Amino acid sequence: MTLDGREPQQEGRSAKRWLIGEPLPTEKLEGQLLPKRLALPIFASDALSSVAYAPQELLMILLLGGLAFLSFAPWVAVAVIVLLLVVVASYRQLIKAYPSGGGDYEVAHKNLGEKAGLIVASALLVDYVLTVAVSVASGVDNIISAIPMLNPYRIEIAVGFVLVIMAVNLRGVRESSKTFAIPTYLFIASVFVMIVAGLVRTLFGDAPVAESASYTVQGENLTQAAFILLLLRAFSSGCSALTGVEAVSNGVPAFRRPQIKNAQTTLVLMGGTAIVLFAGLTALALISGVHYAENACHLQGFANCETAPQPSLMAQVATAVFGANSIPFFFIQAVTACVLLLAANTAFNGFPLLGAVLARDSYAPRSLNTRGDRLVFSNGMIILGLAACVILVVYQANLTQLIQLYIIGVFVSFTLGQIGMVKHWLRALRQEDAKPREIWPSLVINAFGALLTASVLIVVTITKFTHGAWLVFVLMPILYTLMLGVNRYYRDVEKEIEVDPTTTFGASGDHAMVLVNRMQKPTLKALDYAIAANHASLEAVHIAVDEESTKKLEKQWSEMNIHVPLTVLESPYREFAIPVLKYIKAHREEHGSEVVTVYMPMYIVGHWWESLLHNRRAKRIRQQLLLMHGVSVTIVPWLLDSSELIYGRRSRPLPGQERRGEPVRPEKAVPRGPVKTKK
Amino acid sequence: MTLDGREPQQEGRSAKRWLIGEPLPTEKLEGQLLPKRLALPIFASDALSSVAYAPQELLMILLLGGLAFLSFAPWVAVAVIVLLLVVVASYRQLIKAYPSGGGDYEVAHKNLGEKAGLIVASALLVDYVLTVAVSVASGVDNIISAIPMLNPYRIEIAVGFVLVIMAVNLRGVRESSKTFAIPTYLFIASVFVMIVAGLVRTLFGDAPVAESASYTVQGENLTQAAFILLLLRAFSSGCSALTGVEAVSNGVPAFRRPQIKNAQTTLVLMGGTAIVLFAGLTALALISGVHYAENACHLQGFANCETAPQPSLMAQVATAVFGANSIPFFFIQAVTACVLLLAANTAFNGFPLLGAVLARDSYAPRSLNTRGDRLVFSNGMIILGLAACVILVVYQANLTQLIQLYIIGVFVSFTLGQIGMVKHWLRALRQEDAKPREIWPSLVINAFGALLTASVLIVVTITKFTHGAWLVFVLMPILYTLMLGVNRYYRDVEKEIEVDPTTTFGASGDHAMVLVNRMQKPTLKALDYAIAANHASLEAVHIAVDEESTKKLEKQWSEMNIHVPLTVLESPYREFAIPVLKYIKAHREEHGSEVVTVYMPMYIVGHWWESLLHNRRAKRIRQQLLLMHGVSVTIVPWLLDSSELIYGRRSRPLPGQERRGEPVRPEKAVPRGPVKTKK
Repeated sequence: MTLDGREPQQEGRSAKRWLIGEPLPTEKLEGQLLPKRLALPIFASDALSSVAYAPQELLMILLLGGLAFLSFAPWVAVAVIVLLLVVVASYRQLIKAYPSGGGDYEVAHKNLGEKAGLIVASALLVDYVLTVAVSVASGVDNIISAIPMLNPYRIEIAVGFVLVIMAVNLRGVRESSKTFAIPTYLFIASVFVMIVAGLVRTLFGDAPVAESASYTVQGENLTQAAFILLLLRAFSSGCSALTGVEAVSNGVPAFRRPQIKNAQTTLVLMGGTAIVLFAGLTALALISGVHYAENACHLQGFANCETAPQPSLMAQVATAVFGANSIPFFFIQAVTACVLLLAANTAFNGFPLLGAVLARDSYAPRSLNTRGDRLVFSNGMIILGLAACVILVVYQANLTQLIQLYIIGVFVSFTLGQIGMVKHWLRALRQEDAKPREIWPSLVINAFGALLTASVLIVVTITKFTHGAWLVFVLMPILYTLMLGVNRYYRDVEKEIEVDPTTTFGASGDHAMVLVNRMQKPTLKALDYAIAANHASLEAVHIAVDEESTKKLEKQWSEMNIHVPLTVLESPYREFAIPVLKYIKAHREEHGSEVVTVYMPMYIVGHWWESLLHNRRAKRIRQQLLLMHGVSVTIVPWLLDSSELIYGRRSRPLPGQERRGEPVRPEKAVPRGPVKTKK
Repeated sequence: MTLDGREPQQEGRSAKRWLIGEPLPTEKLEGQLLPKRLALPIFASDALSSVAYAPQELLMILLLGGLAFLSFAPWVAVAVIVLLLVVVASYRQLIKAYPSGGGDYEVAHKNLGEKAGLIVASALLVDYVLTVAVSVASGVDNIISAIPMLNPYRIEIAVGFVLVIMAVNLRGVRESSKTFAIPTYLFIASVFVMIVAGLVRTLFGDAPVAESASYTVQGENLTQAAFILLLLRAFSSGCSALTGVEAVSNGVPAFRRPQIKNAQTTLVLMGGTAIVLFAGLTALALISGVHYAENACHLQGFANCETAPQPSLMAQVATAVFGANSIPFFFIQAVTACVLLLAANTAFNGFPLLGAVLARDSYAPRSLNTRGDRLVFSNGMIILGLAACVILVVYQANLTQLIQLYIIGVFVSFTLGQIGMVKHWLRALRQEDAKPREIWPSLVINAFGALLTASVLIVVTITKFTHGAWLVFVLMPILYTLMLGVNRYYRDVEKEIEVDPTTTFGASGDHAMVLVNRMQKPTLKALDYAIAANHASLEAVHIAVDEESTKKLEKQWSEMNIHVPLTVLESPYREFAIPVLKYIKAHREEHGSEVVTVYMPMYIVGHWWESLLHNRRAKRIRQQLLLMHGVSVTIVPWLLDSSELIYGRRSRPLPGQERRGEPVRPEKAVPRGPVKTKK
């Protein structure tokens, strides 16, 4: 082997010296991480938006038993709030222990093993689809509550929103922009103002009265078991208020330093806000006498129940507090719809984030963990968007039915995450340098959280299974199996390509061929490069499919006085790859296991449509050549003028990038080569 | 430049010597060309199947004027037959003069210039879509005539058939198999038997009577102009019998030798059969008193006109001759439907054929002219199939409406083809060695054909434009512009890559880099190949995105005692391509315009889904490296075990292959390399 005499170390140093001129962009990175004021809306829109539907679904289930059952509502709501408090406390511990952004998946995977991790992952994947479906359905519900004439187009509007959100994300959008933060803050503020206004009016004896307060419902005589089941069902529907709480724990790397503390503070702020809004809305709904029924025709007094839409709880409360069709009413409906659509958008960002974590652990295509592979993310988002559309169409964008599917996955990941945390603390206790005083409180919190979420999971499963949740239990095993299959595939490949002492490649000779079709600049460039590479032997190879052009080439070859021998291969079947393959085979039979390098020119183009017009044949030949043992293919690029366009292109933000704490590189995508005039 | 000492000639000879062992497969090729008995059904199914709808549409238009107008039917039919005779005679000349299979497009292009050629091409492209739509609509019509209960699903069945035909062609199917020939022969035979039986019964005074003979139609008082217009409209609808006549002229290269004579004989046979069937069916329909109306409710006496389907003319004649729901009736309907679906299938074969011719002339992506690029053909067929589906849905699979669009394109290409032929013969006359005696008859035939088809084109345009044909006049310019754009693009590129004496590539140095990610067999193979290639300088380059794995690699590197220096590039943004690009840029700035060859391993896999799991990142890096001046990329393939599967795969026939006279190579797709155990 001939080297140019420089020592390896020197080479390495020169590379480093060259790099030293450029400061490490740690500061820049820090500058692009999220401050709390931006992190809150990004990570909280999912959790906060769920208060738009959770109280409604809670009261609706209770109403199935009759008006009298609404008196249990405060107790059920308190149970939900207690659960929310416990879950927030549990996740504060999780953020501290696993700040890498893997969330429940990572905790379950590391502490309970691969299978538990994959169960959490498949639960979360299903939940992303349902987050989109439920949030959009609820958003459309609130839009229709404000503009009832849109009711006949419920499904079309819902599907339309999903497609728009998908398109926006496919195009690439920075989630951390202020446009994304404003609706969440407006939502919090306006709902808070509404709650205060309503409570103040109540205090002064002018309690708001909802339109539906006058409607009555036929009470049912329930057995004690049915009574308890109804309470539990109401509780599990109310638990939809907890969806999205885990989002912060998945995004710790995106927070400004001190990351753990900032993330914890954001989580607590989010939990507190959610509790205030949830409690306030439930209270106002009860005070104003909102009666929301699963089937509008069960409401005695509600006219045109078959066709008229039932206004959402949010709309009814807003109407009661601010008056029908008042400006504040429309404002509340608008920001509620906005926040719900933002929550749907978060799924499009969270999905690639989970994909990246799964890819890192080899349960998903590795490319999902690669920065900048827009195609992969695009495919993922298209799958997510279409799945949500299918679900919306199948369930007629019916919020109540969708909620039935929703919370299973959330509580699967809550429960396994908490159990994992318990195991984590127990192991921490057993370590030599353990500080039991610090560990015990965390252990107790997580153990309590695990117990509670596990109980809720059982309740949710029992009360929801026959109402549609079985679908989730079908989808989860399918995803589980797929992910396991991918993992096993990677493991097998890893074994196949592992370095062992016995494998020799026996590459000895060095023969090069330049494929020549016509006498053109790209061909000459390839020839030039091949000559520069100084191979032991070199020949040009032409496949003769057309006698005339072959003769022309041979003539030009001798005219231009090219010293590389030109071999002409006959191709009776007008094929390109097969004659070359046969020729190489014959060559190798003659010369032993020589390495044969095949030079091929390739057009580099600037417009996507240009690639439809070029390179197809070359690509096919390349693919076939690469199947042959002992062959390597050298691509000599020919930059068409249009390829200049690529230099100007800036990279667009990828979905989920900011949640991963990965800032967009501020520079242009491709640094230009130093030689411009010479191709 | 160092060569291995062998002379160019010697090299060439050794290649030829190696090839001599294998006989040129001319004989094989001949054996796979089509004998007349197979060529007739392949090229005639389109033309012959049109007799299934042409008489019906002819009579239907006449009936718009009232029952009395049917007495003009024989004259109109005779006009159509005369036109058919002239067109067949004209195409006999065309086959002789242009046996290369370019058909009307080639004739117009060569004699009337680029623009005329492109008009023909765009007309033909539109016609392929309409051939599918019309044939399938008529086929479904005949199925529903036999099984009226399918009537509510007309559109669904039609779209279903298009999708099935598309799927079959995407899968790959040999058109020359006997299965394709049988239905056409059965159709000819059974319709012929029916005509003879009907005429014999008439001769013996037992004339068949159609069910609809008793229905009457409200006559209209037409002005003389309206009367003539109606006759012309009936004539132009009857001209749909001529569609498909041009097929033979496009497929001359697929015929056995003597090609021209065989093709001409087949054309005459086809024309004769079409005339017999067309005349016989029209006569029988008139004898048996078939009354077929555009709007079934205009038929006084036809019950349930809103819902019940009107039986097709073919069905009514078959019922009249053989009796309702008799076995021959069902047989006739079945073979008619079969032949019509076969005619739709021919479009899926003719489309790639035209694409190949256009590609040869640089009006379509060149890949369309490449053998074996299934992907390109697949895309074309998907476009064709979906366009036909859209048209079927938009026009509710209504045959009469579709016929309005259909014949414009056919007569555009007829007319321009004939005019081109006239110019061809005129030029032939002017040549020195011209034989006027041989040329004059041809010239007269084609001139008459041109005159007649031009007149018909004017008639068709006038009578059909407002009935839907305007759509064709919108689509054709779009296709025309697209093809012209592709041509201009290729011309510009051609200029850009033309060899000129001033371009120098200045490739002088020879530096090579091997991209190393982890220490694995594919990496070692790439390294081995790079060492074998004996570059002037060689280094291994690692991009450090993860400190741990970098340290591990450096340790392994020194442990394995690899003499190639390892350069580690920092990547603060966790990117892969950019650090390498910057490093190469710096290297080139230091060492001048050296050629830098970058070695990259690449996985070769056997299953399509495996490619989802590999190579994404490598592909992205490769794409970015190829954008840089002075860089070439060498791909060192790593054949995963699953890639063995590829060797077993046989190539499937491509659509239109047999019409082009291109036999499928009998061997396996990829010859195996000689070394199996060593990768």
